Amino acid sequence: MDLPSLDSLVTPAAIVDLDRVEANLQRVAAYTREHGLRWRPHTKTHKTVELTALQLRAGAAGATVATLHEAEVMASVADDVLVAYPPVGPQRLARLMALPRHVRVTVALDSREALDGLGRAARDAGRTVGVLVELDMGMRRVGLQAPEEAVALARAVADTEGVRYEGITFYAGHVRTPVAEQGPVLREQASRVGTFVTALAAAGLKPPQVSGGSTPTLWRSHEVAGLTEIRPGVNVFNDRNSAALGACAWTECAYSVLATVVSTAVPGQVVIDAGSKALAKEEGVDPAGGYGALLDRPEVVVRGVSEEHGLLDVSGTAWRPRVGERVRVVPNHVCTSVNLHERLHVLRSGAPHATWSVAARGW
Amino acid sequence: MDLPSLDSLVTPAAIVDLDRVEANLQRVAAYTREHGLRWRPHTKTHKTVELTALQLRAGAAGATVATLHEAEVMASVADDVLVAYPPVGPQRLARLMALPRHVRVTVALDSREALDGLGRAARDAGRTVGVLVELDMGMRRVGLQAPEEAVALARAVADTEGVRYEGITFYAGHVRTPVAEQGPVLREQASRVGTFVTALAAAGLKPPQVSGGSTPTLWRSHEVAGLTEIRPGVNVFNDRNSAALGACAWTECAYSVLATVVSTAVPGQVVIDAGSKALAKEEGVDPAGGYGALLDRPEVVVRGVSEEHGLLDVSGTAWRPRVGERVRVVPNHVCTSVNLHERLHVLRSGAPHATWSVAARGW
Repeated sequence: MDLPSLDSLVTPAAIVDLDRVEANLQRVAAYTREHGLRWRPHTKTHKTVELTALQLRAGAAGATVATLHEAEVMASVADDVLVAYPPVGPQRLARLMALPRHVRVTVALDSREALDGLGRAARDAGRTVGVLVELDMGMRRVGLQAPEEAVALARAVADTEGVRYEGITFYAGHVRTPVAEQGPVLREQASRVGTFVTALAAAGLKPPQVSGGSTPTLWRSHEVAGLTEIRPGVNVFNDRNSAALGACAWTECAYSVLATVVSTAVPGQVVIDAGSKALAKEEGVDPAGGYGALLDRPEVVVRGVSEEHGLLDVSGTAWRPRVGERVRVVPNHVCTSVNLHERLHVLRSGAPHATWSVAARGW
Repeated sequence: MDLPSLDSLVTPAAIVDLDRVEANLQRVAAYTREHGLRWRPHTKTHKTVELTALQLRAGAAGATVATLHEAEVMASVADDVLVAYPPVGPQRLARLMALPRHVRVTVALDSREALDGLGRAARDAGRTVGVLVELDMGMRRVGLQAPEEAVALARAVADTEGVRYEGITFYAGHVRTPVAEQGPVLREQASRVGTFVTALAAAGLKPPQVSGGSTPTLWRSHEVAGLTEIRPGVNVFNDRNSAALGACAWTECAYSVLATVVSTAVPGQVVIDAGSKALAKEEGVDPAGGYGALLDRPEVVVRGVSEEHGLLDVSGTAWRPRVGERVRVVPNHVCTSVNLHERLHVLRSGAPHATWSVAARGW
């Protein structure tokens, strides 16, 4: 296959540094091995079969997904798939049951409605689906609030034919504390998890698995006593938010958007062809603000985006690129940027290595 | 073709009300006819061939695009294409020159670099490309700042073989003033346009076309004296921002995202399966905040989004949906939401009518 050079790519284009990806995977594999944690990475970040395969080869126990399309795509390489999303609605249930029989399927849910639908579908399909009862650890998005609610739902899971009680799960996505300052947050999380586990154990429903984790808290996951599994997503690529929180070094950012300077007509400003349709428009946690920063000049921030325009703030640098020059941007949040691209241009040692399809986009 | 009913669609799904689209197009066609304005709608909003065809049938003079992929896709139905984006880089130029010969191609640009590259490419290809000189009307994104800059670039355009001087263009996308209060803004715009036109005319470069317009200012475009053309994009569908500014009635919103309620575990909150990967995460101008509102209950706002979750604020309503119920969300900004979907499910009189591909996604 003849791969285009970086210079010949149409911009904006999604670029992946495979050496950095592999180092990121080795690092999390070593960490989870060291601490006896199961690693089931969230593949919504990359939506790419080849990357799931790399994660499994590096030691991942399975693939976490959010959508049924992701489940279908990742089931081509993973024989353990966790749908970390309530399986609500006949379409989701039908597709869940149609996943290949050899795939061990688990879902997260927080309601009787979801459980009852799942149980019926599983019995009709003659298969058994694992269930993790979803708890809210303070994000206030989904998840049960109180231990007695968790006990009631876990008991219903245990009593439902067609499903298998696998334990509890949560996602503390609200934690945006820098890594060095996460002590109190993690102690609180451990204490809250403990309360749920104790209540469940007292009811004879000790959770076999306690699944949690996120990229910002990744390297301190072992401080949450009782945790058996983590599901970091972003970590495969990292992004500007991860770096700002200290969850990675800037040089561990493995994803960037290649862009071309298209205008310098407004004095003191440089406009590139990567905007909200290539980077996504997400506020970040970096105190410098903006929507991303240049890979090779992190002091240059994308201070504004419209659909096909990114506005670079060059006030803090003497660098003055000309129209036509190319740059690479690390977005604040990699997941929503990747989702805007049809394919990833993969580099090995800086040279074109492969083109991978972001195959699990859409639903 | 057997079309799925709304109930059987996988959610989230992009829904288009074709009756409303057609009424929106008739309205802008009548307005531009009445005021002698050329209407060249921006097709980046829908990226859909079928909708460009409808716009042309309703009286549009051509298709405006931002990317070369949009240009290639829309050239299949439009014989007049304006690339309202600087044609910077060899890839853009090669693709521009490869557009079908019968298509009248115009580009907007604001630099000598862009002009010189375009001239060379056009001469090499043996074709003539129209040029609109881009001005900044206060958005401070792209565009020349001063009349003397515009005169110099317009003269260079007139002197460049392979290109055709067609006039000036601008996009006042920063105007977020409610329609009823736009008087002063539009008078200032008219005055600024007048200064440029006078300077150009004095230099013997009177602009044949003065191209502007946006959806928020659409219905008062005729107050900008000298304007010959408008390029509204959003107006085909409208969105929550357009409604908040008074540029459309809520009942003129023709696009929504169908979603399913997946969790009500957090008290006082309803979670749907349309998040930032279906609605896009864009702050809006509606004083109620959030990222969208329900089509049938505009008082219910999507107050937060994560990738596959939308959090509905139900504090202002007695409505308490159950898990599994379906709703339709009008996003703040329709362009970035449409761009997240592979296809549009089109309704006529509320019933499935067609499925259209969002064919011009990507670059």
